[in-house]
Amino acid sequence: MTTRWKITIEYDGGNYHGWQIQENAVTVQEVIEKALYRFSGEKVELAASGRTDAGVHARAQIAHFDLERDTDPVEIIGALNHYLREETISILQVVQVDSEFHSRFHAKSRSYRYLIINRRPPLALNDGRAWHVTVPLDTDIMQEAANMLIGKHDFSTFRATDCQSKSPVKTLSEAKVEKAGELVSFQFRAPSFMYHQVRNIVGTLKLVGGGRWDLNQFKAAFEAKDRTRGGQTAPASGLFFWDVEY
Amino acid sequence: MTTRWKITIEYDGGNYHGWQIQENAVTVQEVIEKALYRFSGEKVELAASGRTDAGVHARAQIAHFDLERDTDPVEIIGALNHYLREETISILQVVQVDSEFHSRFHAKSRSYRYLIINRRPPLALNDGRAWHVTVPLDTDIMQEAANMLIGKHDFSTFRATDCQSKSPVKTLSEAKVEKAGELVSFQFRAPSFMYHQVRNIVGTLKLVGGGRWDLNQFKAAFEAKDRTRGGQTAPASGLFFWDVEY
Repeated sequence: MTTRWKITIEYDGGNYHGWQIQENAVTVQEVIEKALYRFSGEKVELAASGRTDAGVHARAQIAHFDLERDTDPVEIIGALNHYLREETISILQVVQVDSEFHSRFHAKSRSYRYLIINRRPPLALNDGRAWHVTVPLDTDIMQEAANMLIGKHDFSTFRATDCQSKSPVKTLSEAKVEKAGELVSFQFRAPSFMYHQVRNIVGTLKLVGGGRWDLNQFKAAFEAKDRTRGGQTAPASGLFFWDVEY
Repeated sequence: MTTRWKITIEYDGGNYHGWQIQENAVTVQEVIEKALYRFSGEKVELAASGRTDAGVHARAQIAHFDLERDTDPVEIIGALNHYLREETISILQVVQVDSEFHSRFHAKSRSYRYLIINRRPPLALNDGRAWHVTVPLDTDIMQEAANMLIGKHDFSTFRATDCQSKSPVKTLSEAKVEKAGELVSFQFRAPSFMYHQVRNIVGTLKLVGGGRWDLNQFKAAFEAKDRTRGGQTAPASGLFFWDVEY
């Protein structure tokens, strides 16, 4: 008899080659699975609500796993954070869930935040946690462009070439652009995202905000459903996996 | 004929043994003076508005220096940030000032911010940029205690034993405590601060916020004018030199 546990994870992605286990590189999944093994002696597989790339951070990644060991949330969170104490990974919450629960398949929506520091001088305090953009950005016009993305659309223009999604049609329920001093933040929510979708959207919105493109050019690129018509992929360091709704 | 320049500096203090030059340890002052030497060939001395300890950050430290070289702000900021590119130090602004200007003596007030992350789980994303406090803090009562500090008082209870200030009497014009989710932030403003004053105040306010002390105990400790009656010195990593008013 195993018990299924759902955990909430915060990490600074700068020290890991993304979430998913791979050969010859340290990943978040691998590090937590090793901590679970040290705690329980069981080789468990962690299933995350969504994979993150190298350098991408998480404020509240969700994952689940099964354990045979008879234990409780307090013991699990204490043991995991103990074995993770040298890492930039923190287990925020552990909850027992129904054995049917699936962190990925049962997620109703996910949200991402993306941070830009918009100024000339280089970043010192926020290096590695934001995209440094020096061209002045007009966030009002970026918000107008972002509004075009709300709803159900073919997002091929923002789809990574090696994306394995079955369909490029996705439904975006939120696309907010906010400015607070030199900080420009984006918040996106959708039932699911394609590989690099948020970073490709931000890289393209930056063309509009910086005055390189007007709204018509953005619209034309979006409607072309062609990745080569979109802007650059914004750097991983500015992206935060924000939360998951079940 | 030399020209006096005022610079605004941001740094992540985690990589330096504080502001002031010392033997056998890398400091912010030393690193910037070296960059100035590489740019100008002149050995200049940087005078800061206030020294910061090892691990303390700066959002907007102010310093000044004199150069013989005929140059301009754009050249200086470009050259300095070039030579500082491997450091977590960024020059935000360079302005030519009157030869009488003094970053330290002419400062009307300085402000510091202190950040606490108040939660049980360890810090991953904000490790090194906040104090991790696990006991739940009541920020309303902390604000009430902080209000007692406003005005001109003898701050001996919050004065480091090796502080070299002539007098322990200081005037605090602002002491704000704010809560936003798990983040507790403090903002202090005064014409000048004593060594460790902010960190000793925060360490003592934490006793009140965490319920170990009531307001009367805080008041008694403050009025005792005795460092041994105050709380712990809060860690350097949560402290940010915020700005200077001239």
